[in-house]
Amino acid sequence: MAESEEPEREEREEGEEEETEGVEAEGTGEEVSEGEEGGAGGVVETEEYYRIMFPKGKEFRYIFTALANLLQESNLIIDSEGIKMKSIDPSKVSLVILNIPGSGLEEYTVTKELKIGISFDLIKKILKRVKAREKVELGVDTSRNRFFVTIYTKKGREGGFYRRFGLPIINIAEEEVPEPKLEYPVRIRMDMDVFIDVLSSANEFSDSVRFIAKEDTFSIMAESEGGKAIETTYTSSDEVFYEYSVQGSHDAMYSVELLLDFIKPMKQISETVTIEFDNNKPLKLTIDFAIGSVQFYLAPRVA
Amino acid sequence: MAESEEPEREEREEGEEEETEGVEAEGTGEEVSEGEEGGAGGVVETEEYYRIMFPKGKEFRYIFTALANLLQESNLIIDSEGIKMKSIDPSKVSLVILNIPGSGLEEYTVTKELKIGISFDLIKKILKRVKAREKVELGVDTSRNRFFVTIYTKKGREGGFYRRFGLPIINIAEEEVPEPKLEYPVRIRMDMDVFIDVLSSANEFSDSVRFIAKEDTFSIMAESEGGKAIETTYTSSDEVFYEYSVQGSHDAMYSVELLLDFIKPMKQISETVTIEFDNNKPLKLTIDFAIGSVQFYLAPRVA
Amino acid sequence: MAESEEPEREEREEGEEEETEGVEAEGTGEEVSEGEEGGAGGVVETEEYYRIMFPKGKEFRYIFTALANLLQESNLIIDSEGIKMKSIDPSKVSLVILNIPGSGLEEYTVTKELKIGISFDLIKKILKRVKAREKVELGVDTSRNRFFVTIYTKKGREGGFYRRFGLPIINIAEEEVPEPKLEYPVRIRMDMDVFIDVLSSANEFSDSVRFIAKEDTFSIMAESEGGKAIETTYTSSDEVFYEYSVQGSHDAMYSVELLLDFIKPMKQISETVTIEFDNNKPLKLTIDFAIGSVQFYLAPRVA
Repeated sequence: MAESEEPEREEREEGEEEETEGVEAEGTGEEVSEGEEGGAGGVVETEEYYRIMFPKGKEFRYIFTALANLLQESNLIIDSEGIKMKSIDPSKVSLVILNIPGSGLEEYTVTKELKIGISFDLIKKILKRVKAREKVELGVDTSRNRFFVTIYTKKGREGGFYRRFGLPIINIAEEEVPEPKLEYPVRIRMDMDVFIDVLSSANEFSDSVRFIAKEDTFSIMAESEGGKAIETTYTSSDEVFYEYSVQGSHDAMYSVELLLDFIKPMKQISETVTIEFDNNKPLKLTIDFAIGSVQFYLAPRVA
Repeated sequence: MAESEEPEREEREEGEEEETEGVEAEGTGEEVSEGEEGGAGGVVETEEYYRIMFPKGKEFRYIFTALANLLQESNLIIDSEGIKMKSIDPSKVSLVILNIPGSGLEEYTVTKELKIGISFDLIKKILKRVKAREKVELGVDTSRNRFFVTIYTKKGREGGFYRRFGLPIINIAEEEVPEPKLEYPVRIRMDMDVFIDVLSSANEFSDSVRFIAKEDTFSIMAESEGGKAIETTYTSSDEVFYEYSVQGSHDAMYSVELLLDFIKPMKQISETVTIEFDNNKPLKLTIDFAIGSVQFYLAPRVA
Repeated sequence: MAESEEPEREEREEGEEEETEGVEAEGTGEEVSEGEEGGAGGVVETEEYYRIMFPKGKEFRYIFTALANLLQESNLIIDSEGIKMKSIDPSKVSLVILNIPGSGLEEYTVTKELKIGISFDLIKKILKRVKAREKVELGVDTSRNRFFVTIYTKKGREGGFYRRFGLPIINIAEEEVPEPKLEYPVRIRMDMDVFIDVLSSANEFSDSVRFIAKEDTFSIMAESEGGKAIETTYTSSDEVFYEYSVQGSHDAMYSVELLLDFIKPMKQISETVTIEFDNNKPLKLTIDFAIGSVQFYLAPRVA
């Protein structure tokens, strides 16, 4: 059995990632010599190292999965108040606004504003492996310009285990986006699972769905080629609604795929979603979860 | 965030469906003006509108899934007696005969013979979402020439919810098929799951399976290239058999893929299948379920 | 419905297996005339027919799945002591050594050394269908030069059911491989599920992983392009370790895909794995299961 520099497997799939050379041991870099204790979790805590601990892995996992579904990269703004993000997706039809107050997090050591540009591609793969009860720590090392996601057991840093994902902080030029100030005649808070199921059915027929809200019924429709169509209708008194406020009759069309990309992960952390829309106006979804909230705006399609 | 007429996503998959323009609101068409109540479920019930309610979604789902697996389109014959179908698959090696008496259905309002030509492609996607305890209503609107599948909760039309799938009734030219009248020396009624598992194993080896029935054993065999072969044998006294009647020794070969396409969904609605065959004669399967029965004939292959 | 010699389905997938002609009934070959009893399970037991019964299907299934993941073909050596295998994978970076003593098996009738060359391709498909509590019998017919895998219910040959997979014994030229005799400064026995989970995470980042064992911590690291990296670290006192013996600090890099191909199936039959390695030396994994043991050696990669 010879030592091999570049072993190749016969059934190796095409398009696989390039092999990497020279794995750098995260947290045992230049500052730390071999065998030296690098502080809790192996990272030297400096004046320029900031930590944020999420009490449960669940929220972190599903919020960032939803973001990663929409965005390739984004700036997180982390300051003394909390974590904020406001980003437009690459196709420029949706806007997502995230707000997680620092007061609901553990060990929130950020005192000045940090702008953390991150690329989402590998984060998605990491997120899949975060278990609901694990703790997740975000770390920002401003001297090394690196961002860390560290996963601990529910015991936290005392648990004797961590998994650390490190990535460079990148510079992302983002235009300033003002938050839309819109008044809507339709405001419906409904069961999240039902909303996702209705959208998924519609998506079998078309990439576009039509929302029709009347004072007594809410319908979602889609039509495919050849005159095939699907319509799902709920009476306003149905138990799937937690709030139902509609003045008049309103009708708008939206891209269902972006909607599903965003909302599917959110059902893991919220049982309801608030839907607001109007004729030819952006759809607005609001989702409140244990430690914060997210708004999602989606431009209408012209029928 | 600009309003977009044709938004495109960067990672959009190729071969996706064309976007549709102008979704038509099912059941709120020309006859019904905005805001007007369209009768139960939003469809105007006219002299020319016929309804058939399946008491449970389960049978409807799996029978039509089996049909959709075999057929691209077919004529349903619906008359005062019930729902019937007799169709040959596009490769012309199998014949399927469906019979669902109206007496086992709820609200069976059909009094004259209706010939309903339907295309199965999108129906399959709808069927996946029908839950076992939901009610399914078939609707035929002869004036608008449309066929509807409406899904209600188990409360039926009073449930305040419906999902309606509408499609045009199409004109399908089908040759008249006489039902084969064959006498078989082999008649075996056996456990459905076991039969499917044995066929699936054989299908790993070949697209053709050989059935061998003797007075005391029933074997299914398949052979792949390079002399690899699989054989599954049950003694006639085995508990997988509910009926075992074989005179002499009989041996025939059939395409296993068509067989599996048809029979896999049926295991959800029947625990047994009756198998009849003879040397170089079509295989005949009979499956009885709560509200009807289906026969499946499959031409033999010549070894 | 015409009888068809070569039926074709319209949606037939490309690259499907060729249809086979003339399925041979296993165990009812030349020696056995129609209707004659072929001994238990339909195979004539001759002086040259050897049987080995595995008391449970589970071990057989997962060991051979691991082998089939690594190897295309291999020689099993079966003698009066037991079943042995020692094979190098086609890319020549790993060596697997299997040992199953005959004393732990039922009905072990082998008295002389048999060299059984088998090809693994279809075996893998068969293995998927072996249920944990079924019995598996290996049969070697030296006169017909065929190898059989027969699956019975937990009642064994008296169960009235069998599924028999037969394949030709092939002639495989294998170089004699001496078992490596290495002394390792690192010997860690740890939880199998945890080890697989850590490797799977690393595999999201790279095809190469670095193992770093120190006296108080064990880390596995991987790095992808663009400076993204993952590190998982356990303190030596963590409950995932059953044995932790490390002198000094050791560091080596291995291909993670081959590792996972081999080890994933093994978690079904063993709760722990023993890991031994050293700088620039092969990794050695040892897995003990109910009826035997397996060693897996993997050549290091040069960073």
